[in-house]
Amino acid sequence: MREFTEDRLDDLAVGAAILGTGGGGNPYVGKLLARAALREHGPVTIVGVEELDDDALVVPSAMMGAPTVLVEKLPQGEEAVRAFEALQAYLGRSITHTMSIEAGGLNSVTPFVVAGRLGIPIVDADGMGRAFPEVQMVTASIYGIAATPMALADEKGNQVILADTLDNRWTERFARSITVDMGSTAMVAQYPLTGGQVKQAMVPGTLGLAEELGRLVREARTAHDDPVAAVVERLGGRRLFSGKVTDVERRTVAGFTRGEAQLEGISNDAGSRLTLHFQNEHLVARRDDRVLASAPDLIMVLDPDTGEPTTTEDLRYGFRVVVIAAPCDARWRTEEGLALVGPRCFGYDFDFVPIEERLP
Amino acid sequence: MREFTEDRLDDLAVGAAILGTGGGGNPYVGKLLARAALREHGPVTIVGVEELDDDALVVPSAMMGAPTVLVEKLPQGEEAVRAFEALQAYLGRSITHTMSIEAGGLNSVTPFVVAGRLGIPIVDADGMGRAFPEVQMVTASIYGIAATPMALADEKGNQVILADTLDNRWTERFARSITVDMGSTAMVAQYPLTGGQVKQAMVPGTLGLAEELGRLVREARTAHDDPVAAVVERLGGRRLFSGKVTDVERRTVAGFTRGEAQLEGISNDAGSRLTLHFQNEHLVARRDDRVLASAPDLIMVLDPDTGEPTTTEDLRYGFRVVVIAAPCDARWRTEEGLALVGPRCFGYDFDFVPIEERLP
Repeated sequence: MREFTEDRLDDLAVGAAILGTGGGGNPYVGKLLARAALREHGPVTIVGVEELDDDALVVPSAMMGAPTVLVEKLPQGEEAVRAFEALQAYLGRSITHTMSIEAGGLNSVTPFVVAGRLGIPIVDADGMGRAFPEVQMVTASIYGIAATPMALADEKGNQVILADTLDNRWTERFARSITVDMGSTAMVAQYPLTGGQVKQAMVPGTLGLAEELGRLVREARTAHDDPVAAVVERLGGRRLFSGKVTDVERRTVAGFTRGEAQLEGISNDAGSRLTLHFQNEHLVARRDDRVLASAPDLIMVLDPDTGEPTTTEDLRYGFRVVVIAAPCDARWRTEEGLALVGPRCFGYDFDFVPIEERLP
Repeated sequence: MREFTEDRLDDLAVGAAILGTGGGGNPYVGKLLARAALREHGPVTIVGVEELDDDALVVPSAMMGAPTVLVEKLPQGEEAVRAFEALQAYLGRSITHTMSIEAGGLNSVTPFVVAGRLGIPIVDADGMGRAFPEVQMVTASIYGIAATPMALADEKGNQVILADTLDNRWTERFARSITVDMGSTAMVAQYPLTGGQVKQAMVPGTLGLAEELGRLVREARTAHDDPVAAVVERLGGRRLFSGKVTDVERRTVAGFTRGEAQLEGISNDAGSRLTLHFQNEHLVARRDDRVLASAPDLIMVLDPDTGEPTTTEDLRYGFRVVVIAAPCDARWRTEEGLALVGPRCFGYDFDFVPIEERLP
């Protein structure tokens, strides 16, 4: 059991946004929300996956929708609590723990609001080891665990429960429509899990890893070392490209932020171009005509000087960035994992190749 | 208490479809569903509104969506029962009665399936005294009664609960999106009401009226009288137009069947044209440039020889029809009623004028 206090928030926010691979919500918004919760309710308790009783009832809390909209329609935290309480009432049992469904500047800390308000601990884990745009893209889906019952709430006072669906893809479909109706963002409570299911089917240690990444970046910066190198080393990743953003095409459609960014190489990469394709998260990095990295591996866009990540809704013309990639959780690379989050799931016509093979 | 047996179904289906004003679901589909339910479970019990205990728990059962799709994707009845049971589980109390939410070839008899399966009586009432396309267009809305909690189910096994929304228009919005995702039709259980609320806020006697209209039409036909005249007389209505359908423009959009039909006058109406505008139901009848009748008054399209109604999804080039209109429930003509179902609610730029004033 560890007490999480406000002074640790900066490291967590930076590291979580790095793992968010461009999505997972804006870290500034996340920090504001989490700080307010910590100040109002005091420190939250983080427990390791191994500390969970098998019959604990764990419910992840998250934001769903288009990050472009989120930065204009700031979540108040109240919606997250209402979604959580609506699901608890529907389940008819007390939820014992909350957790993140994905890593990300906002979604790593959304559970802080619920944990603070309800006085329950947070499990140090998530359902992706990164961020992905769709409901079914959670390691629990590999194990046949349902996202339902799932509750959605908005800032206006609406609450919807997806009681029982055919599968997690249907849950995504309904939840996406409702999210669009709610104004393209919603707060959700989903994937109710036993403690045993969390141990089996989720990704342990994501909060700890995020905080560690944030600390490594901060220390490298303070020591005038290369913060990007620190991240690459910790994640066993690869440096893909150094460049300047020359164009960003971004649309908010069907409850997602979709688009591409064009980068022109600088220093060693001068003369080359890199294209980043994203749907909330960075999904494919293509250098000239060659794919350098793709989902489910992590693709991250960092500031070369500060090591801080840029989300897909914040990418702007003129930004100087370094693009890196790192291996995803091993389960995403299995046949079942790739059927959920492989390149073809996002409409790309090629098979997944691990980053270590693409760039030995 | 009255036992409703299969031999009464034909009259009910015809009369309900007349009151359905072009919508409310296909009467042939409705008859098939209700007949199967009556054969499987025996007669259902119909009770009058006045027989209800004030603390009865009454939940209307209905089909929602585009009638054009309904005739291709036939409801099995199972979905209606699942929506009903999902809502009952959510409410945590036994539902004592069901009823129709609207009059219509299908929606007047949808409750028969639920009543038969669950062995509960049907209340002789509905929420419109006719059919309307949207969730909030129920007399209960005038009294501030919520459509939520509301359950939707499809034939694939999906179940969604709209737990709590800002108002019945928001419920319509969410329910419509979910219905579209479910394949443009869904079975729903909505507007849970106490017996007291049914007495106060719903339209009593709609089933009885429908059966009576069906009988009048049948008897007129048998006696070689004019069946259309019998309907006009019983409803205190007006004969608007006799004509031949020369064009139908119909689209299935956003979970509705929308369009217009053009009619060329015959006999006394030769030389004139009538345009019918519909959204599931007939909403406006315009003769040349003059509005003859509009929602919330009832506009009905009948076969001049048989008196049988034609639904908006069945209207075809070449049909010879008589168009009639009749006064709606008096509550729809109040300021609160017209704010829910007046011509402007459907996008028309004119105020409601009662049919008795338009055609004295």
